[in-house]
Amino acid sequence: MTGGDSLDIRPIGVIRTPFESVAGIPVQPLSGKGIRGKIILREEYAEGLKDLDGFSHATLIYHLHRAAAPALRVVPFMDDEEHGIFATRSPRRPNRIGISTVRILKVDKNEIEIEDLDMIDGTPLLDIKPFFPEFDNRHGGRAGWLEKRKGENKEGCRSDDRFTGE
Amino acid sequence: MTGGDSLDIRPIGVIRTPFESVAGIPVQPLSGKGIRGKIILREEYAEGLKDLDGFSHATLIYHLHRAAAPALRVVPFMDDEEHGIFATRSPRRPNRIGISTVRILKVDKNEIEIEDLDMIDGTPLLDIKPFFPEFDNRHGGRAGWLEKRKGENKEGCRSDDRFTGE
Repeated sequence: MTGGDSLDIRPIGVIRTPFESVAGIPVQPLSGKGIRGKIILREEYAEGLKDLDGFSHATLIYHLHRAAAPALRVVPFMDDEEHGIFATRSPRRPNRIGISTVRILKVDKNEIEIEDLDMIDGTPLLDIKPFFPEFDNRHGGRAGWLEKRKGENKEGCRSDDRFTGE
Repeated sequence: MTGGDSLDIRPIGVIRTPFESVAGIPVQPLSGKGIRGKIILREEYAEGLKDLDGFSHATLIYHLHRAAAPALRVVPFMDDEEHGIFATRSPRRPNRIGISTVRILKVDKNEIEIEDLDMIDGTPLLDIKPFFPEFDNRHGGRAGWLEKRKGENKEGCRSDDRFTGE
């Protein structure tokens, strides 16, 4: 395998949220329950939103544009031990791609009201996929180092500044 | 919002699967149950795999490199009506980004044996995220046009050639 060229991937819109700095953001949508914001899609893509409002949830794919430089080993927010970046959700990943499954409240032309947010204001959006529980849920598996945090209340769980690029 | 520049996103590896042509591929990992393949990560990222083997599932983010040109309205494999691209999982999306949650069988240096596959052989990999059911599952929501397919057996569900770029 040789060094790959950069792919032609461009923002299709922007995610507006109440979070203006990298520290203090919910670590996952579960921790950001009830927090609202919106997607402003580029107008030329508005037609692609038809029937999205039939889904209660969608998975957003976005660019972690303010993450610190990539690292292969990190200590994630929810642990005090180091893990490989691909065994964590830390933003310091190659390609800085983030995913979050959020609640869809309302679709109006090129704007979508969303809830349960864990991303910073101004995040560049790359894709929107409808969530289908039958396809997307997984049950009864193992969750590695996160097993020990199972069942804890994570609603107040917030980031600190360890992964900021500023 | 002005036209966004292309982001610096490059393949971190490749996904090897038994599927050599775009037609006949499982439409989702659920339909590709038991189908095995592997990830060959670029060697310089191998260190980032530490502790991934503790997870039974991971969500792969990849480039739908052989998809047809993007379209804003499509008739998806699982329906006979047209929907907005962002209300479907069709590969004809802007940015051609795909996601699939697969089973992790074994991690060995820069190679990962995986199962429940629905992507074509040679797919460029962009990211690997550990799956944590407590964060990633969603229950009791609405699934739009897919509601009517709920509970059906989808294990044999395969693509045809409508989205091929060839």
